[in-house]
Amino acid sequence: MYKDNYPSRLLEEAVNAINMLPGVGKRSALRLALHLLRQPQENVHHFTAAINSLRDDVKYCRICRMISDNDICSICSDHSRDRSKICVVESVRDVMSIENTGQYHGLYHVLGGIISPINGIGPSDLTIRELVARVAGLCGAGDDTAGDSPAQASSGGEGIEVILALSGDVEGETTSFYIYRQISGFGVKVSSLARGLGFGDDLEYADELTLGRSIVNRQEFHP
Amino acid sequence: MYKDNYPSRLLEEAVNAINMLPGVGKRSALRLALHLLRQPQENVHHFTAAINSLRDDVKYCRICRMISDNDICSICSDHSRDRSKICVVESVRDVMSIENTGQYHGLYHVLGGIISPINGIGPSDLTIRELVARVAGLCGAGDDTAGDSPAQASSGGEGIEVILALSGDVEGETTSFYIYRQISGFGVKVSSLARGLGFGDDLEYADELTLGRSIVNRQEFHP
Repeated sequence: MYKDNYPSRLLEEAVNAINMLPGVGKRSALRLALHLLRQPQENVHHFTAAINSLRDDVKYCRICRMISDNDICSICSDHSRDRSKICVVESVRDVMSIENTGQYHGLYHVLGGIISPINGIGPSDLTIRELVARVAGLCGAGDDTAGDSPAQASSGGEGIEVILALSGDVEGETTSFYIYRQISGFGVKVSSLARGLGFGDDLEYADELTLGRSIVNRQEFHP
Repeated sequence: MYKDNYPSRLLEEAVNAINMLPGVGKRSALRLALHLLRQPQENVHHFTAAINSLRDDVKYCRICRMISDNDICSICSDHSRDRSKICVVESVRDVMSIENTGQYHGLYHVLGGIISPINGIGPSDLTIRELVARVAGLCGAGDDTAGDSPAQASSGGEGIEVILALSGDVEGETTSFYIYRQISGFGVKVSSLARGLGFGDDLEYADELTLGRSIVNRQEFHP
């Protein structure tokens, strides 16, 4: 039998590297490594170069912190979008999910995570300060120069909406509440995602919390 | 919505590259790409370097064509192995599987594939010629100099066993038969893997072909 079960140190190192990916076990990692070994060399180099380029060269939008090929992302630079709405999300993936619905035409703000004391992530690790500055800017309130602005901070936020589209767990709620406290002084409208039964969901299989909220937050019936 | 659903061309290229891996769909590829994007740069470089090294620097054993860090693999250079037995397998993975059983102590020969006309793989694409030369060498029959050898080709193979450990489908059987015809002239013993019900298998759930072979190839009962 092989020492440590690998016929080659190079194979073992590649398997260990692939095994680091989330959801890829040792067996899958071996299968993928042996697959890559059978591919033409230029294909393997293309594969690794694409990953290196992503990590090394991708940019983050200066305004909303979404990943982008330019300094300003395609959404922030699209003048047909509604600039009075900022949807606050945890991650790049969330922006992509909401964009895929085709139902939202405002801007975004990517926090880059969520407040999670257990994982050592505090407000300063996220882009909350940048969000607050953005909202202040939209409301015509300068960062440290609010006194120069003719409008009071609390009245400049009319018509601006910040949508907190964070997860519904304790960490998401904590983050939403923290952000709410930071921006509510600007007089902007702050909303969060509707929660309730999914479309087509059976009452029988819904959890009690979701069903309970669905009843409390019931909406007028529009036949 | 994003053109082609990606906020960045670099992300799209990385997702497409990862999507080429077997069993990794578009969604998983995106998840993996975004995971890699969140990792420290040196971890990502380590990951890609390990894969490049595997593809660029791995060697194939000069004797058995198993992957190896050296010109001769650890099995072929292990003098405690039984050199009178050659187990013929399709792939590197098969060697690892058989080694993991701990039940075999002979040598191997990796074909690097299987005869498959439908996929355009013929005998010359595999290491069959190298196998025949190996068997000829073991039998003391020179390649084109059989006449110089004192023993006849057909008598030098005594005590040598070639085990055809290929898959049981049509392509595996074809390859086994092709190899058998090439080496049977040397007088070596040629065997193939036992096929039948798996240990612990229920008769009820066995397919008819397997159950039929299990009856035909029944073995003496050793209580």
